[in-house]
Amino acid sequence: MIFVNENLIAKGTAAKQAARVLATLPTDVKNNALLAIAGGLVKNSDYIISQNKKDLDLAKEKGMASAMMDRLSLNQSRIESMAEGIRQIAALPDPVGEVLGMVKRPSGLVIGRTRVPLGVIGIIYESRPNVTSDAAALCIKAGNAVILRGGSEAINSNLAIANIMRQEGEAAGLPKGSINLIEDTSRETAVEFMKLNGYVDVLIPRGGAGLIQSVIKNATVPVIETGTGNCHIYIEKTADLNMAENIVINAKTSRPSVCNATETLLVDEEIAKKCLPGILKALSEKGVEIRGCEMTQKIYPNAKAATEADWETEYNDYILAVKVVDGINAALDHIAKYSTKHSEAIVTSDYSASQKFLSEVDAAAVYVNASTRFTDGFEFGFGAEIGISTQKMHARGPMGLSELTTIKYIIYGNGQIRK
Amino acid sequence: MIFVNENLIAKGTAAKQAARVLATLPTDVKNNALLAIAGGLVKNSDYIISQNKKDLDLAKEKGMASAMMDRLSLNQSRIESMAEGIRQIAALPDPVGEVLGMVKRPSGLVIGRTRVPLGVIGIIYESRPNVTSDAAALCIKAGNAVILRGGSEAINSNLAIANIMRQEGEAAGLPKGSINLIEDTSRETAVEFMKLNGYVDVLIPRGGAGLIQSVIKNATVPVIETGTGNCHIYIEKTADLNMAENIVINAKTSRPSVCNATETLLVDEEIAKKCLPGILKALSEKGVEIRGCEMTQKIYPNAKAATEADWETEYNDYILAVKVVDGINAALDHIAKYSTKHSEAIVTSDYSASQKFLSEVDAAAVYVNASTRFTDGFEFGFGAEIGISTQKMHARGPMGLSELTTIKYIIYGNGQIRK
Repeated sequence: MIFVNENLIAKGTAAKQAARVLATLPTDVKNNALLAIAGGLVKNSDYIISQNKKDLDLAKEKGMASAMMDRLSLNQSRIESMAEGIRQIAALPDPVGEVLGMVKRPSGLVIGRTRVPLGVIGIIYESRPNVTSDAAALCIKAGNAVILRGGSEAINSNLAIANIMRQEGEAAGLPKGSINLIEDTSRETAVEFMKLNGYVDVLIPRGGAGLIQSVIKNATVPVIETGTGNCHIYIEKTADLNMAENIVINAKTSRPSVCNATETLLVDEEIAKKCLPGILKALSEKGVEIRGCEMTQKIYPNAKAATEADWETEYNDYILAVKVVDGINAALDHIAKYSTKHSEAIVTSDYSASQKFLSEVDAAAVYVNASTRFTDGFEFGFGAEIGISTQKMHARGPMGLSELTTIKYIIYGNGQIRK
Repeated sequence: MIFVNENLIAKGTAAKQAARVLATLPTDVKNNALLAIAGGLVKNSDYIISQNKKDLDLAKEKGMASAMMDRLSLNQSRIESMAEGIRQIAALPDPVGEVLGMVKRPSGLVIGRTRVPLGVIGIIYESRPNVTSDAAALCIKAGNAVILRGGSEAINSNLAIANIMRQEGEAAGLPKGSINLIEDTSRETAVEFMKLNGYVDVLIPRGGAGLIQSVIKNATVPVIETGTGNCHIYIEKTADLNMAENIVINAKTSRPSVCNATETLLVDEEIAKKCLPGILKALSEKGVEIRGCEMTQKIYPNAKAATEADWETEYNDYILAVKVVDGINAALDHIAKYSTKHSEAIVTSDYSASQKFLSEVDAAAVYVNASTRFTDGFEFGFGAEIGISTQKMHARGPMGLSELTTIKYIIYGNGQIRK
């Protein structure tokens, strides 16, 4: 494979060399470096804010929407939060070196399975500059070198953060090349980064559907697909309707922009007339637009007509698709057809319905009587999260530190040869 | 994404539908189906042999090398072996449904981690027709549907085997679409198969370096890279030289064509003069060509001169590269530079050298005082093997039934909503 981009190769080489050292770096060195980095970010917050202002000024010139401007914007308190996030990562147990099992085989060989870092992790992300510190800290804690490629809108902020992290980290004992940021934010370079086989062990995209699809299409390095969530709630006919209403409102409106928000509500036809008017009215009052099937429109005339596209869409917005279904099998068929396999929930008081749903739905997280919004590394008890995998390989659902590692077999022999 | 190939889409759709049923199929149904398939292959061995003869006749016309002809060839005893392999897979424990952990969170949610099938597994392989039955049986046992794409040289044999497996399997309770074979063996169709996102959950190539590279370059579905093994043995200065000789001879000559055979021998300079003449003479007598560094040539004048390419090459043949190195760090550097991270071994009687090697070498399997030839699903106690992963994502080293599964979080709530 021929690379035009010598700068990428240089970063890849540096990261690979650092990864060899990081793999066996003592836990306390990693933790101290993370604490030094956290302190450094706070200490240099004026500088970070001044660099962030450059990005904000450019964004304003380009007419960026205010919600996007807000995501891009850094201030003292947000930098304190970034530092606090890093301190929390430092406080987590080190996953590296855990022995997952050891067996003695008939050959006499003792075979152990141990947790080791992945090596070099690539992260491609969009406008939020806090991803820079968050992702780098998680990678370092799990013993990996990291190559970051953030969006062009945040390049000055990202450079400031990454430079401080690198300086403070190296001064505290991290090997040179542990933290790398690609300065060139062109699309061409991003695509070359996705093909950096031999240097990048795993690439994790964090961002919208467009970014994820570009990575899936272009990458030749192994990828962990994250964060596409067309999530459903199915209100089964025996559901506690009060519980159902609370769960649906929470799952749709507590934070509509995130991947674990619910996008489609499925309701059993036996109870649709009884429960839909109240639930949909409450949602409407919270500003949610309802797009329903024919039956939904009959029951709740304010609903717009849903089209095929509505069943497929992850709105990430105050919109909910609603469909009345003929029993649990129809609900399971709908979910199997349209789910992105992120988070799916049933509200029911029937034992066998709950078991059937848990068993037959193919998704990272399958809920009984709870909001889909819980799919998250912190809520699952991982203490941190690098993203939510929506593929089946390597990691599924929220990814914590363990998911940033792989295994290695270590084999103790005393002269064994194979017959 | 637009697919020209409706036949592939049809197979993908059938496999996806079958996967939904297979995911919850009782263990005894899967096992009985596998036993029926094994019986069916033996019962129809005349038919399989007659179809295999078509492939052999075509291969002969095309002037296929005799070693390749042998790999392609089936007879009564080889079909019995295929059937026996399937019976052994039926006898293994079912990985599906295993609960890997369950925790109660402060929210009151009970979160369980359970093992579930991957879904639809694609296998791309080359000339050996026994891979058809072996791979399909492993996928089915782990609850997956399978889409097979074998080489054109074996298409008649593969079709015969797959058809019998499908008929016998479906008659014994497997859902329609569980076992699929792509009849069209064109390169174009293979590339389209590698891009069958939405239908194929994981693609596993089994074959030579050319096939693996083509899959890495073209695939947009998640891939598990297998079987590239540029393996090393390092004879440390405190090694028991008799043990070292036995291990090197075993690792190089017991089966040179496989990925866990050793390709490069590294010898500490302190003992090179003492141990190399005997080891290299013994290897030469077994027909191994020696390609050595300058020092090796001085010690053993029959050695040819090794070039840079020799350190990089997986010979899969009776050839061994030999390099004299200045201590363990030089050995570790050489391995870090040239290893494909498959299997690496040290021969030593020094405790700290053994620990350093185990800790610092980045490979799927790292050995002390044993032959690299042990890296194998059977030797590791998995009972079966679909291949040896040489990537770090999802699976590393020999892959058994567990590696053909993923996990799913099941969450028991009682009305929880997220704050």
